[in-house]
Amino acid sequence: MSGLADKLDGLLGRKGWLTGADAAGHARDWLDRYGESPLGVARPRNTQETAAVVKACRAAGVSIVPQGGNTSLCGAAVAGRTGAVILSLARMRDISAPDPASGAIEVGAGVVLAALHEALEPHDLIFPMHLGAEGTAQIGGLIATNAGGSHAARYGMMQDLVLGLEVVLHDGTVWDGMRAVQKDNAGYQLRRLFCGAEGTLGVVTRAVLKVYPAPKQRETALLALPDLAALAAVGTALRAEAGEFISGAEFFCDLGLDLALRHVQGLDYPLESRAPWYLLVELTAGSARVPLSEMLSDILESGFEKGLVSDGAIAMSEAQRAALWALREEQPEGQRLEGPQLKHDISVPPGRLEQFLTQGAALCEEIMPGVRINPFGHLGDGNTHYNLSLPDAGGDFGPVKERLGLALGGLAGELGGSFAAEHGLGRAKVALADALRAPAERALQARIKAALDPEGVFNPGVVVRTGG
Amino acid sequence: MSGLADKLDGLLGRKGWLTGADAAGHARDWLDRYGESPLGVARPRNTQETAAVVKACRAAGVSIVPQGGNTSLCGAAVAGRTGAVILSLARMRDISAPDPASGAIEVGAGVVLAALHEALEPHDLIFPMHLGAEGTAQIGGLIATNAGGSHAARYGMMQDLVLGLEVVLHDGTVWDGMRAVQKDNAGYQLRRLFCGAEGTLGVVTRAVLKVYPAPKQRETALLALPDLAALAAVGTALRAEAGEFISGAEFFCDLGLDLALRHVQGLDYPLESRAPWYLLVELTAGSARVPLSEMLSDILESGFEKGLVSDGAIAMSEAQRAALWALREEQPEGQRLEGPQLKHDISVPPGRLEQFLTQGAALCEEIMPGVRINPFGHLGDGNTHYNLSLPDAGGDFGPVKERLGLALGGLAGELGGSFAAEHGLGRAKVALADALRAPAERALQARIKAALDPEGVFNPGVVVRTGG
Repeated sequence: MSGLADKLDGLLGRKGWLTGADAAGHARDWLDRYGESPLGVARPRNTQETAAVVKACRAAGVSIVPQGGNTSLCGAAVAGRTGAVILSLARMRDISAPDPASGAIEVGAGVVLAALHEALEPHDLIFPMHLGAEGTAQIGGLIATNAGGSHAARYGMMQDLVLGLEVVLHDGTVWDGMRAVQKDNAGYQLRRLFCGAEGTLGVVTRAVLKVYPAPKQRETALLALPDLAALAAVGTALRAEAGEFISGAEFFCDLGLDLALRHVQGLDYPLESRAPWYLLVELTAGSARVPLSEMLSDILESGFEKGLVSDGAIAMSEAQRAALWALREEQPEGQRLEGPQLKHDISVPPGRLEQFLTQGAALCEEIMPGVRINPFGHLGDGNTHYNLSLPDAGGDFGPVKERLGLALGGLAGELGGSFAAEHGLGRAKVALADALRAPAERALQARIKAALDPEGVFNPGVVVRTGG
Repeated sequence: MSGLADKLDGLLGRKGWLTGADAAGHARDWLDRYGESPLGVARPRNTQETAAVVKACRAAGVSIVPQGGNTSLCGAAVAGRTGAVILSLARMRDISAPDPASGAIEVGAGVVLAALHEALEPHDLIFPMHLGAEGTAQIGGLIATNAGGSHAARYGMMQDLVLGLEVVLHDGTVWDGMRAVQKDNAGYQLRRLFCGAEGTLGVVTRAVLKVYPAPKQRETALLALPDLAALAAVGTALRAEAGEFISGAEFFCDLGLDLALRHVQGLDYPLESRAPWYLLVELTAGSARVPLSEMLSDILESGFEKGLVSDGAIAMSEAQRAALWALREEQPEGQRLEGPQLKHDISVPPGRLEQFLTQGAALCEEIMPGVRINPFGHLGDGNTHYNLSLPDAGGDFGPVKERLGLALGGLAGELGGSFAAEHGLGRAKVALADALRAPAERALQARIKAALDPEGVFNPGVVVRTGG
């Protein structure tokens, strides 16, 4: 056992310092693509212990990989080299009583998103972030990746929902920015900078988050659509008629639905006919006096009349609502079970989504004829999870992976969008960032990294290339 | 004429390089508190000229003070030492056609906020930022100060409304971050970092901003309230009944109303009785089917019944609406005409506003007995412009100014808020920031400054202490 391991063992105790088999569950990312063997996993109980871990690692010259729920899709929360210390925040899961009059709540970095949702329910409040991994993802990790999800077009991404932060810096100093106000222009917006820094600039230990009153009404519908033009037109109609009430507008295609229905148990497709595209719409209102149900029916009816909607169903119960969402949320699992896949996380200005999907499909077909494209995502912010499965005839993604990433990311950039919308860069997309973003931008990122973590203690190899 | 002046004169031409009397209008801030004599005023026409100015100044070792509409309340846009170059973006006022389907528009840094509002009107779109200086303030300056204003609780501050940015960096390199998507997690959130940097990290030259559909309904009312508890209770009722429709909720007190009515021509107070507190409420809805008018009437009626509202008026025309807003917006002018004043820009968690106002008044009375307090601001985000006029018996703010600032700012901090809510630090509040914020936070700010502007070319003395 190294001197550092001894020290951390003494500092954190049996439950706080895991090695060997006990650490194994933390060593690899959940797609099992990244993660070298760590020295061990530090599990501090509080900010002071976290600071002590950072000081000890820094003194020993050992790098630190902060880890939340370990649901990163880009390998951001596991080690790039053997011997690093994984710093799990999982034990820091305090949730304060919410302050409804201020719309704020204090949480520890290790709080699981679903646990926060549950804690707020009796108070008739919501934390408006929803994503597939919410049963596992932790607040600290969501902050580190500046998570988005299905409600982001209405409520913003994580950085929009963070009022205050506490962060342990590279030398073990604690920055206490646990304020609870939207307006704080006392210098550079540090709270925003740490959101999306993927654990490379400091370790988020606590946060003050915005909370909202729970909606008093909710309407959910699944629409079947004949083509991409209809998707765009229905999106426009929705924005025009009910724009401020759209909590979710998730689009997907028939391949994604098919993969989910074929591979995942217990799903139920409620419409009579299938279609090339689908839109799952959720409207919510904080006032009971908004005629939400009529608004949704009218949009659907008008869509039928114009031939923009070929079939549709409105959820009449919470169970039906959950069943509609499952058709969307189980698609990643369906595609995983289908076999090898390539994931891309693209955003384009919403008005250019149709163009991206059309041109993107042509690029893919050119690079890998027959490749099966499953684009699904968030209509409101133009964010597409553009996932590929092998052609029916089989094949190998290895030789075309890089070319596909560059082509699709390049197209997104040309359209004013991003090749890294909401999953971050992690280890997986650093090379892509170096290729697709201007040297001036990458140099700025490197300068910020060097300024806040000059010795490269935190998460080396993530976001920017570093020596570590 | 120095070598640099010659060079800039040659580079920018007669309209692009102002000296002597021509430069005088740019040299002092509008409260006439700051501004040393500059070498001259550079007025580039485009990004390339801006970059050339930066390179020339850097080569000559002369510092640059970026300037927008010069409406800073903290001296952020004028020189701290003689001989600096003021870089005015006023000529860069291109406005693109908006992209309604993507909710985005491209603008030059010199576009005046009111001009943007006007340009969007024929498209039935809005840029949802409103503040007193909107007829003068420019987009670049609003970005640099991360402006808030009266609609920020609903739509966010400037950083929430900026999708993309173009920035000239310290060495004249141009960072092109003119993307038009909400979701872009390709590394550190540079667009957010430059918002609120007050021109100390780079010069913002262009931006992609979010735009929203124009509301289809608007209801505006002025309520007279018997006490602070009623203000809080009405605020709670508004949030509960019509939370998602509140575009503005501006509170003020009878002193502020009195100062406006006494000093500013053309104002009209529509209620029959006066009261200690007032709330100006504006509700807007994107859908014509929201019963907005009934909702507002019911909230008022219920307030009357419970004794929370002593009088009230709902605007029945655009002229009446403008008249109500003038009562709030002319208060700074009324107070300026009253004589010497001290301005503070405080935010606290909205649920603690009543506590701040009560305890703040006690602190002020203790430090300067009889001082007249005029707190007015934004109920939704707890942001109070806490302005003081001299006691009726007269006096001098000089000896108590620092103590008042520390006491009020300290109280805001204890309550989880900020001494610098939306006006920034500029030159005026750097010492206050050093006193009120932890050394760890100030050190982080200094490191960011050093990383992005290592030679201190941009706006020395603003945000952080620097050599310049």
